[in-house]
Amino acid sequence: MSKRAEELHLNAFLMGVGHHEAAWRLPESDPYAGWDVAHYQNLARIAERGKLDSLFLADSPGQHGDPARRPAGQLEPTVLLTALAGATEHIGLIATASTSYNEPYNLARRFASLDHVSGGRAGWNIVTTAGADAARNFGLDDTPPHKERYARADEFLEVSTRLWDSWADDAIVADKSAGVHADAAKVRKIDHAGRFFRVDGPLNVPRSPQGHPLLVQAGSSQNGKAFAARWAEAVFTAQQTLQEAQAFYADLKQRAAAHGRDPHGIKILPGIVPVIGDTEAEAADLDRELDRLISPEFARRQLARLLKLDPDALDLDDRLPDDLPSEDEIEGAKSRYTLIVDLARREKLTVRQLIGRLGGGRGHRTFTGTPVQVADAIEEWFDNGAADGFNIMPPVLPSGLEVFVDKVVPILQERGRFRTDYTGTTLREHYGLPRPADSFTTSPAVGVSV
Amino acid sequence: MSKRAEELHLNAFLMGVGHHEAAWRLPESDPYAGWDVAHYQNLARIAERGKLDSLFLADSPGQHGDPARRPAGQLEPTVLLTALAGATEHIGLIATASTSYNEPYNLARRFASLDHVSGGRAGWNIVTTAGADAARNFGLDDTPPHKERYARADEFLEVSTRLWDSWADDAIVADKSAGVHADAAKVRKIDHAGRFFRVDGPLNVPRSPQGHPLLVQAGSSQNGKAFAARWAEAVFTAQQTLQEAQAFYADLKQRAAAHGRDPHGIKILPGIVPVIGDTEAEAADLDRELDRLISPEFARRQLARLLKLDPDALDLDDRLPDDLPSEDEIEGAKSRYTLIVDLARREKLTVRQLIGRLGGGRGHRTFTGTPVQVADAIEEWFDNGAADGFNIMPPVLPSGLEVFVDKVVPILQERGRFRTDYTGTTLREHYGLPRPADSFTTSPAVGVSV
Repeated sequence: MSKRAEELHLNAFLMGVGHHEAAWRLPESDPYAGWDVAHYQNLARIAERGKLDSLFLADSPGQHGDPARRPAGQLEPTVLLTALAGATEHIGLIATASTSYNEPYNLARRFASLDHVSGGRAGWNIVTTAGADAARNFGLDDTPPHKERYARADEFLEVSTRLWDSWADDAIVADKSAGVHADAAKVRKIDHAGRFFRVDGPLNVPRSPQGHPLLVQAGSSQNGKAFAARWAEAVFTAQQTLQEAQAFYADLKQRAAAHGRDPHGIKILPGIVPVIGDTEAEAADLDRELDRLISPEFARRQLARLLKLDPDALDLDDRLPDDLPSEDEIEGAKSRYTLIVDLARREKLTVRQLIGRLGGGRGHRTFTGTPVQVADAIEEWFDNGAADGFNIMPPVLPSGLEVFVDKVVPILQERGRFRTDYTGTTLREHYGLPRPADSFTTSPAVGVSV
Repeated sequence: MSKRAEELHLNAFLMGVGHHEAAWRLPESDPYAGWDVAHYQNLARIAERGKLDSLFLADSPGQHGDPARRPAGQLEPTVLLTALAGATEHIGLIATASTSYNEPYNLARRFASLDHVSGGRAGWNIVTTAGADAARNFGLDDTPPHKERYARADEFLEVSTRLWDSWADDAIVADKSAGVHADAAKVRKIDHAGRFFRVDGPLNVPRSPQGHPLLVQAGSSQNGKAFAARWAEAVFTAQQTLQEAQAFYADLKQRAAAHGRDPHGIKILPGIVPVIGDTEAEAADLDRELDRLISPEFARRQLARLLKLDPDALDLDDRLPDDLPSEDEIEGAKSRYTLIVDLARREKLTVRQLIGRLGGGRGHRTFTGTPVQVADAIEEWFDNGAADGFNIMPPVLPSGLEVFVDKVVPILQERGRFRTDYTGTTLREHYGLPRPADSFTTSPAVGVSV
């Protein structure tokens, strides 16, 4: 395939001191950095120096992982991103938030507020949250069924988008002499009554700079892809091979088109964990050093939990058992489960080797090499129908982001593949995505004035 | 009563372009300022220049008030205060949040995050949220009964405080060579199962600088005072006369003592709307100008709604009807209802005069005078058992806060009544309140390790 005319998109996926689970054990790492806003502000400024489209925080409302083994938990993302908005001027700010464990009025309002505070740089990574740890903080025994979570997510988005549209862009008239602040006909209730939610509205925040925050999604199960095809404007995905990534890319663009959407209106960004050295040998050394620091016993227990097995069923120096459950039997992170099992079988990995691969990127693609090799790897997928950009997951932070920004980005810029400066002011503009029209423009007769 | 030895406490209650409902109509006011983070950052810096203890944002998760008449709604307070944390260094940051329309895990986490991001400056004004407008955004037909709201609030606080205490202060050991990040015995579940909530925990945020955010409360009904006596460390209250304020002050200190608490551990701050001029005549002119800008028809409708009457039952030039409901029949803001009715009857106000008084501070005490007179009024209540400090509600913003900080604060400082610089770094230190010990110190055997 020939070189694509448009530029690619880059997102910095920030996670404490790095995506590699043992990163905190390196001499350079500050093990308290995960709760230090100055650490995140530094990362945000590095990403903005590289002219990246956006930065992103994952999240779950529960104690995710074993706090004895690695830094566990994180500051709440909408709070943390608001602090990063004040430390940056251009870069987009994408926070994960769960549709299963929030109320749409509260969450829609928080994202509208972040969009106002950041001048139009807010994005929402919509998740339905797998894991009993989270469920048990919200009155439940276990994660609700996968299909139910996505049904709730669909209705959650219907409510949220209508709340964001409950003020016309030009609702505030501010006529001081007449004493009229807003045009009452341009602020209206939504009167939503559905299976999961009843919300009268309107939102108590005027329409925000982007209209809606950028809608991002990351689940790759059948339900997840159906949801993405309807709602997502950017998709973070975990793909190990070019072929898998091409198939996922074609499938999702096709599904979006089937919803009557422009396939260019949904940007697909596979994750990549770039382990970078000035030479191949240096990169391989970093890779080995990180894997050496993984505690295999802890990791074996975590893998067993994910595969719904007793830890004793996993021998570190043997392959995965043959009789694993099918994806249908998994109610948690379905697509991640399948990806891990497929990776282990395709590459005939022992449990120990699999742990090493997962320690780096939890199922995302690890790529070890020089800056030129990383840039080549990015271009190959971008030019061959596998990606519109990449979700960059540095194994160690801040050093892994610094080397990407200072050594890989300039190569991509020289090759004309990536912007040399910001040309827009909003996150939507960075991704080349339109600002949604308000509902008063598209259907002026709908709704009831307040 | 003699002059008190300790210093008083001052909180800046920020609200858009001012507490007077017609403030936005003044030539100086920016009617879009309510959604402009730069406006609030400017206010926060002014308050910090005055060495104020804290600033505060009220809130309701619904469209509160008529958007045609005055700026309605506001950015979500935990987001907005995070943005203000980045613009200031010392001042405390108090956000209102509802126990009726949030989940404790999410909210406890957000306040812990704000406390981390601000370096120990977070406070939570705990409200149970009156008003059908909010209820109807959360699947309900109307506000839940008053008693039920407070029962939920009590359990919400039990859960929240236990979540904040689910990490010991010294839980993170960061032993890189052993690969142990946190001491597993110092991070534990809370396993709460109550009438309203089931929450396993632990929180996914380590213990924050203050341990708990400062707990603030503002309801003055019987249920509200019982709740404050148990939980509140600072109380914002609306009192019109010295005698009423003294009675409220004595009652609440007594109730706190009955809970085994130190009465000095609960600070009482009545609201005051200072209308300030260099001369009495200038102050009176500003007062008149503001009242002239109130739209009486809008205000009459709002008053009628609060009093549960038909608007036609209120004649602008007559007094309130005699046959009003008793506080017991009000399920909304009970104490505000009684305060307004008492004010109208005590001062024999017409509806038009009452509207003028409420337009300034919605039931809070308006004081019109010179800087010296305002300082005298503050000292009188402070020295006579009516207040530990004041909740300053400028009628116009930023000018009303500027004049208070630049002209009233220096008088209080000269008289030795107020700090001339910050002596502590946390909000608790500003108020002279202790940092709560973690539960591992007070009851090391309770709870289950994760």
